[in-house]
Amino acid sequence: MAAAIALSRRGRPASAPNPNVGCILVQPAPAKAGGRVVARGWTQPGGRPHAEAMALAAAGDAARGATAYVSLEPCAHASARGPACSDLLIAAGIARAVIAARDPDPRTDGAGIARLRAAGVEVVEELLPAEARAAMAPWWTRHAWGRPFVTLKLATSLDGCIAMADGSSRWITGERARAHAHLERAMHQAILVGRGTLDADAPGLDVRLPGLEDRSPAKWLLTRGKAPAGWTAISSPEAIDGVDSLLVEGGAGAAAAFLAADRVDRLLLYRAPMLIGGGRAALGDIGLADLAEAHGRWRLADSRLLGSDQLDVYERVRRD
Amino acid sequence: MAAAIALSRRGRPASAPNPNVGCILVQPAPAKAGGRVVARGWTQPGGRPHAEAMALAAAGDAARGATAYVSLEPCAHASARGPACSDLLIAAGIARAVIAARDPDPRTDGAGIARLRAAGVEVVEELLPAEARAAMAPWWTRHAWGRPFVTLKLATSLDGCIAMADGSSRWITGERARAHAHLERAMHQAILVGRGTLDADAPGLDVRLPGLEDRSPAKWLLTRGKAPAGWTAISSPEAIDGVDSLLVEGGAGAAAAFLAADRVDRLLLYRAPMLIGGGRAALGDIGLADLAEAHGRWRLADSRLLGSDQLDVYERVRRD
Repeated sequence: MAAAIALSRRGRPASAPNPNVGCILVQPAPAKAGGRVVARGWTQPGGRPHAEAMALAAAGDAARGATAYVSLEPCAHASARGPACSDLLIAAGIARAVIAARDPDPRTDGAGIARLRAAGVEVVEELLPAEARAAMAPWWTRHAWGRPFVTLKLATSLDGCIAMADGSSRWITGERARAHAHLERAMHQAILVGRGTLDADAPGLDVRLPGLEDRSPAKWLLTRGKAPAGWTAISSPEAIDGVDSLLVEGGAGAAAAFLAADRVDRLLLYRAPMLIGGGRAALGDIGLADLAEAHGRWRLADSRLLGSDQLDVYERVRRD
Repeated sequence: MAAAIALSRRGRPASAPNPNVGCILVQPAPAKAGGRVVARGWTQPGGRPHAEAMALAAAGDAARGATAYVSLEPCAHASARGPACSDLLIAAGIARAVIAARDPDPRTDGAGIARLRAAGVEVVEELLPAEARAAMAPWWTRHAWGRPFVTLKLATSLDGCIAMADGSSRWITGERARAHAHLERAMHQAILVGRGTLDADAPGLDVRLPGLEDRSPAKWLLTRGKAPAGWTAISSPEAIDGVDSLLVEGGAGAAAAFLAADRVDRLLLYRAPMLIGGGRAALGDIGLADLAEAHGRWRLADSRLLGSDQLDVYERVRRD
């Protein structure tokens, strides 16, 4: 299942507005000592074909009797764009389906599992559901909260500065951290900056990684005014719509606006081993009334070294 | 040797002005499969007895034929306060000495090793010398640079703030991080704060850990004026003297003064999983001319979680 979940990430962000799902078909080994992967699939750009359809097409007859590991419950609803995956799996003769998480879409929501069981397919549910949801966070957030999943990126010195007092910020983090940040761009449908960052840095916001140049996201500007050609003007954090995933790249004002509106789900903190002192702060006022209120909102999800820089990923703790 | 070096840390900071050394005596096993620890010793408060003298006294006759693992070359000079350790080891009949680092004190500096070899003791040199020097950093810095080893502690939010805009800072970090900071206090001879911190927080600067209450360091105030009773006034970072180890606890002005004078050897960065936004910066101006100058000065030495807070330890990269 972990492999199917990893595979599901390949669908991001292009599968939107459909969930990015991963599917692996495994033929059980005779001695029950593991098995053999016969096909893999993930949700294609635009959301179709689905992961299961891709895997079944690749497997052909080898799907018969196989176990399907799927990161999300196979859909129960046919559409003009393709048949229901639960029907496809049944028709292909799979023996068993292992499913990470139920599909909260009311057109499926257990109906895919029920249909599989009714056809005699053995179903195992809720294997690594939290991991599957995390891999589908943009789609899940849109579905559960009716808004995009927002990642805020901050690249700072050890003392939390994003630039020197005179505005110099090239470069604080090193090459590997910047390449990682470009990979994150490729995983998002849109990137947003504030007016100050646009005017000061004229950022391209494109993905400058070999092979991913065509994955550059839409460019959004947080402004009450007009946006230049090639950019979309966004009047407030609450006004974002039309995408499942948004990366907020700065500056301190735009970052603070999204935090004050509690519209940030994930923090990417790149930190270079340097001290600036008296530099520009990473964040403006986020409307914090007292320190007690600031506790318990963020949980460390990942921490790693990128060259000599550190990357910490924090996720917003939400209680419902 | 790693165990002897760990032992040497027990001598800090009380062994000053003498180096904190660790010594372990091991009797070789008949089949050469490891050995048996017969005694351990570390430099006592005030610097005497030395580690080797402690271990030999504990071992008695069991020292004969043993291997001595010592984190610093045994001294070659007798003093009114005790005999030379190289003579003691020879007299006790040890067969072998394994030494992490040479003693740069001109009264020893190879003379201890020469005397051991002349007496027929087998000597192995330079085993984990960097680790041994790191464990003796205060004494080594004083010896090599003629000034104390300075640690700067910063406790911040993820966005690098040490307090909210109104000055509130209790608490940003959690209980475990604060306990660790108290343990660091116990490892230093003096603690320094700036006038602003003294006036705002009236910090006790004592060690509030069970069993270590009597290890509270001297209290120093960075000021051109007078210090209150119980405190020592320090006019500038360059004026610090009389201790081997100093912990600078803040605030932003005092921290910046030490960094601007390049008098900080080690950073303790405690970081709580919260965002403050528009709060008080950790550092004032440190006199940085451009970003390029800020690179390559700090190296990550340790990183760990303390409850939900992160501690990163950085060491100043010095090239001579």
